[in-house]
Amino acid sequence: MRVAGLMSGTSLDGIDVAIVEITGRGWSKRVRTLAFRTVPYPERVRQAILSVSNAPAHTGKISRLNFLLGELYAEALIGTARRARIRLDSIELIGSHGQTIFHEGAPVSFLGRKIASTLQIGEAAVLAERTGIPVVADFRPRDIAAGGRGAPLVPYVDYLLFRHPRRGRVLLNIGGIANITAIPPGARPDQVVAFDTGPGNMVVDALARHYTKGRWKFDRDGRLATRGRVNRDLLDRLLRHPYFRQRPPKSAGREQYGREFVEELLATGLPVLDLIATATAFTAAAVALGIERFVRPRMPVDELIVSGGGVHNPRIMAQLAAFLPGVRVASSADYGIHPDAKEAIAFAVLAGETWGRRPANLPSATGARRPVVLGKITW
Amino acid sequence: MRVAGLMSGTSLDGIDVAIVEITGRGWSKRVRTLAFRTVPYPERVRQAILSVSNAPAHTGKISRLNFLLGELYAEALIGTARRARIRLDSIELIGSHGQTIFHEGAPVSFLGRKIASTLQIGEAAVLAERTGIPVVADFRPRDIAAGGRGAPLVPYVDYLLFRHPRRGRVLLNIGGIANITAIPPGARPDQVVAFDTGPGNMVVDALARHYTKGRWKFDRDGRLATRGRVNRDLLDRLLRHPYFRQRPPKSAGREQYGREFVEELLATGLPVLDLIATATAFTAAAVALGIERFVRPRMPVDELIVSGGGVHNPRIMAQLAAFLPGVRVASSADYGIHPDAKEAIAFAVLAGETWGRRPANLPSATGARRPVVLGKITW
Repeated sequence: MRVAGLMSGTSLDGIDVAIVEITGRGWSKRVRTLAFRTVPYPERVRQAILSVSNAPAHTGKISRLNFLLGELYAEALIGTARRARIRLDSIELIGSHGQTIFHEGAPVSFLGRKIASTLQIGEAAVLAERTGIPVVADFRPRDIAAGGRGAPLVPYVDYLLFRHPRRGRVLLNIGGIANITAIPPGARPDQVVAFDTGPGNMVVDALARHYTKGRWKFDRDGRLATRGRVNRDLLDRLLRHPYFRQRPPKSAGREQYGREFVEELLATGLPVLDLIATATAFTAAAVALGIERFVRPRMPVDELIVSGGGVHNPRIMAQLAAFLPGVRVASSADYGIHPDAKEAIAFAVLAGETWGRRPANLPSATGARRPVVLGKITW
Repeated sequence: MRVAGLMSGTSLDGIDVAIVEITGRGWSKRVRTLAFRTVPYPERVRQAILSVSNAPAHTGKISRLNFLLGELYAEALIGTARRARIRLDSIELIGSHGQTIFHEGAPVSFLGRKIASTLQIGEAAVLAERTGIPVVADFRPRDIAAGGRGAPLVPYVDYLLFRHPRRGRVLLNIGGIANITAIPPGARPDQVVAFDTGPGNMVVDALARHYTKGRWKFDRDGRLATRGRVNRDLLDRLLRHPYFRQRPPKSAGREQYGREFVEELLATGLPVLDLIATATAFTAAAVALGIERFVRPRMPVDELIVSGGGVHNPRIMAQLAAFLPGVRVASSADYGIHPDAKEAIAFAVLAGETWGRRPANLPSATGARRPVVLGKITW
């Protein structure tokens, strides 16, 4: 089955498009990537998304943006297919994650009830109409309806593609936030452990933008971090935060490592290059800490397979290897999955499961009461 | 096929639930209503919906309300089935219209593009999870994606259930707004004409609330209108509005006959009972005018089949008969369809079409470029 996956994360970089071929059945599926491309959001679209994300906004703006993103998703897919010389009508299905503008995995009191909720936009009907391809979208609400936190959903795909009969593998994705999926050797699906380890790139990105006055959007190849020195006191203090002792499942968010966090770092008065070096080490150390505390007690960790933007930062990769002796640290590319494409590929795979009416959440990862069929189908 | 239909209109009265049995195929379907009930919204839910409808609102409030409405829809259906002694697991499918919180059928400029959009809430994943029944929801976006106005969608069902080989029939639904579906004798689907004729009950409702200081939510049995006198000058002036000369397809909305319109009426200084009598006559006269101008030139009108709250107002029914000599004016009840249930029944029927992957918009009614499969399926 040829399926396209579309992902646009909270980093707001743009739209990741993957076109894949899925073969095999059940837990024996295999995925081959035919095309991958990231289409950046136009700056004013990025601003509009930011303005409606977890913020006061006119309902009309959300409604219009929902339809506009549907158009942009369609154009991103059509462009990607054209460049790769893949006929659009050879694609049988699209899985579209959408743009999250609100997510509250734990219930809060609302009009006298306990309500958890999540809201993604990027109108599937527009995407389906422009491409002529059925779309599965809106993957998270059903897991929340079943008592889960609506996240993470990628561990199901990690388990499908990366489990090994004799090796303990940990998948690490370093996006804005860093998260891991730990798969014991020969594990059953319910033995998978997944959680956010802490910050991914978002703190370093913000500091790099600050240091370069906006010219760099991230610390390319870890060059800024290399010019600074890690401040041990600050690093130790950051790692003493209660989050790192909290047992999984657990999730971290933009609110935790956003503007406020960065301003506190800047307020220390340390040189910004030192802060960048320290924040880079913090990302790697938080991953290592999470693995030491909550994964190694349960399983051998033979391999750490890294994806997401952080894989391109050699400082982070070197520190991961240093902090985790005896673990082979590698890019997902070494396992045939483009590290920037992994999440888009994951939503192509998840769409295929929905199309076949198969449950595709892992209750051990999301906390849901039961496995449920995710998403909504637009013919 | 046993299907439930859920409808909650912009009048915000509550949730209409219909459970129907659909038999037959293609254009020969028949519908039998097994149960119908309206479950009022709790007042604070009604207020919360109003506060996010076409207004500034926090994204989080919309997200939480989306999930809360999913819970209320599920409870409304479960309660209706229980009272009617219908086993929930005998219902094969749910069609849920959702609560519209924004609708803009005509494109506007937005971030450099022309965007039309619509936004309904009432999370289908919650409804599906609580009931164990697949749900079709979100019917309007695909018609907009195909160049239509996303409304009206009921004419498809009107055509299915009410067309006649030798009689010209006009279906009239008097909700907040009044709309008609005109079906020539022996018509093909593309010969159906449908449009909003003007106000339905919303002006009279607002005046009745004003007159009774909120004790009456509407003019029960037209009693207040009976105590007032129609002001001919005002009525004539209201009917001279350019909307009534505009050719269909066209649609009227809450913004047109809302608070501002009512305040202008009150500002005339006429006795409120006279205003109620005049507004009641205005509703009926606007229907008659629409039929005379845009329907009778194309087809014979033998029967006017009325549904919606307005059918319970004998003044309106009498005036319709008086303004349309030679037309048989009757309630849809005489044709086997409960007049308050018609819209909920319609979305049960539309859900069945989506389930079978059949297009169910009428381009002649919505302006869409082509017939499209509406809605999204949640397994």
